[in-house]
Amino acid sequence: MSEQKTETILLAHGSGGRLTSGLIDRLLLPRFNNPRLAPLADAAVVDLKEASWAFTTDAYVIKPLFFPGGDIGKLAVCGTINDLAVMGAAPMYLSCGLIMEEGLTMDTLERVVCSMGQTARLAGVEVVTGDTKVVGRGEADGLFIHMSGLGMVKEGISLGQEKIRVGDKVLINGTIGDHGIAVLSAREKLHFETAIQSDAAPLHSLIAGMLEVSDQIKIMRDPTRGGLATTLNELVRGMNFGLTLEEEALPVSKEILTLCRLIGFDPLYVANEGKVVVIAAREDADLLLKTMRSHPQGRESRIIGEVTSGPAGRVLLHTATGGKRLVDTLAADQLPRIC
Amino acid sequence: MSEQKTETILLAHGSGGRLTSGLIDRLLLPRFNNPRLAPLADAAVVDLKEASWAFTTDAYVIKPLFFPGGDIGKLAVCGTINDLAVMGAAPMYLSCGLIMEEGLTMDTLERVVCSMGQTARLAGVEVVTGDTKVVGRGEADGLFIHMSGLGMVKEGISLGQEKIRVGDKVLINGTIGDHGIAVLSAREKLHFETAIQSDAAPLHSLIAGMLEVSDQIKIMRDPTRGGLATTLNELVRGMNFGLTLEEEALPVSKEILTLCRLIGFDPLYVANEGKVVVIAAREDADLLLKTMRSHPQGRESRIIGEVTSGPAGRVLLHTATGGKRLVDTLAADQLPRIC
Repeated sequence: MSEQKTETILLAHGSGGRLTSGLIDRLLLPRFNNPRLAPLADAAVVDLKEASWAFTTDAYVIKPLFFPGGDIGKLAVCGTINDLAVMGAAPMYLSCGLIMEEGLTMDTLERVVCSMGQTARLAGVEVVTGDTKVVGRGEADGLFIHMSGLGMVKEGISLGQEKIRVGDKVLINGTIGDHGIAVLSAREKLHFETAIQSDAAPLHSLIAGMLEVSDQIKIMRDPTRGGLATTLNELVRGMNFGLTLEEEALPVSKEILTLCRLIGFDPLYVANEGKVVVIAAREDADLLLKTMRSHPQGRESRIIGEVTSGPAGRVLLHTATGGKRLVDTLAADQLPRIC
Repeated sequence: MSEQKTETILLAHGSGGRLTSGLIDRLLLPRFNNPRLAPLADAAVVDLKEASWAFTTDAYVIKPLFFPGGDIGKLAVCGTINDLAVMGAAPMYLSCGLIMEEGLTMDTLERVVCSMGQTARLAGVEVVTGDTKVVGRGEADGLFIHMSGLGMVKEGISLGQEKIRVGDKVLINGTIGDHGIAVLSAREKLHFETAIQSDAAPLHSLIAGMLEVSDQIKIMRDPTRGGLATTLNELVRGMNFGLTLEEEALPVSKEILTLCRLIGFDPLYVANEGKVVVIAAREDADLLLKTMRSHPQGRESRIIGEVTSGPAGRVLLHTATGGKRLVDTLAADQLPRIC
């Protein structure tokens, strides 16, 4: 009986020895090729100009590794880029660490690494340093990625909660809930009639355009885990102002809305991976909206609410039916392992 | 019946919601407290002077989490610091990401985080950004830490394989094999008569002192996973020179030597976490040795070998009995999950 042998990750791939270097030379280096990574030293040396730099890190444990619209590799690069971009930084250098479970197929790893390389290349960022570790079967779930990033904050850019004023507008660059529901559909092998795709995308070009036209952006965040509701609550927590959202203005696709009702989720709490929420001075809101809509990542941008004097520290929703309800932070997530 | 309830990590601690912020506010912030971390934004903003910066990342998956001489938290901080230090950089900023398995006890997490905070403080580095993720029971093994680091490379410091010349000396700052054997003893619950401790320690102060007295250091590496043999092989691989070690000069404690013989390990392949191997010009070797020995992390420093014209790309050992043997890279590690 002949059988095709599937190449998998062995514990020895994490030994630091011959198999480790083989993995790095054959699989990783070609995808991330750049002069700073090539020496494979203990750290990459990068030349940083005199400036403020944003430094971020995230672990990616999403389940499953592949989902409509992306995979853990694309997600890691986009997530890291976006964490830098919302700080007003131009993303430049990434690090990539892999924790692999023994038995992970080489094919899966290769697809993820290709996706990471391609996403980074398209976004104009470089993976300059990395690490690989292997743990035994049952000691991890396939593949975890951790990625850190460095981005330069342009002179004159200064963002922060303390800049927020009553009357400021809240904007978002498109529909909410797509990532979470796409991952859920892949995880539970749900077959929806309509194809729901994760919104995973790098937002640094959209955000750079916005920072170019307005110096009245107060703060930006990417509403990932916990969704828009959690992100907005973080922005008002402990502050002497509140925030009101207009339900009718919230961009949610019909498919997401229907599915959320079906499974009992609130799209306000569902994760996004290609969205930025912006608080900006009222007078610049329309200009920013126009700028955002002219960008491929912002076609469906909307003004969704504003900063209010009260209730301080809370997020209120003006419902479509004319009521008001408090949008609180959830104690637990609706969907674990969403990013 | 009364029962003491042990607080453990729940999936909800990874939700990004209320439990996540509780964990960060109560457990993490107090340990890493500094003005760059405090805003808890998506990235830390750090001011980097015009200079070359070293940027490194590592995943820590060591098993067990606690071992004689350290724990995964201390290991992560020391390992990251050392990866920067061997690049000739002064470590400054760290990021910390945690992947926690549901059910990890809060007490364990707290001990690890305290240890990280203390090691960082003593070493004069700051944890400025971080991330927490939780995966289900059986989807990880207790706790994995990933840490990235940034360190400034002083003007005029230039290290690299291409600077190595035949006749250069190889130095190390003390005994080899301690970390690996200490972890093995904890993992297998071996009870040795003598207390073997991991050598986990930050080496940036030792290395800074060496760089101060000599501009003839060609390259430095920390011989962690795969041990001294693997590190030295990486340094000569593909080069037109070789390297010869003197077995009699190799610092190995009597306890490690005995135990290694007993279990069939070669200390040359056992991981270290507080050692640096240095290649330096012959004329500066004695000065460097003296400088290293005057530092607490270098009391047992030795000159252990030299760079030779051949066999090119290989590491040779002059044995104590007058023979020669090739010190190759192992295909697989003797001890998985050692760091």
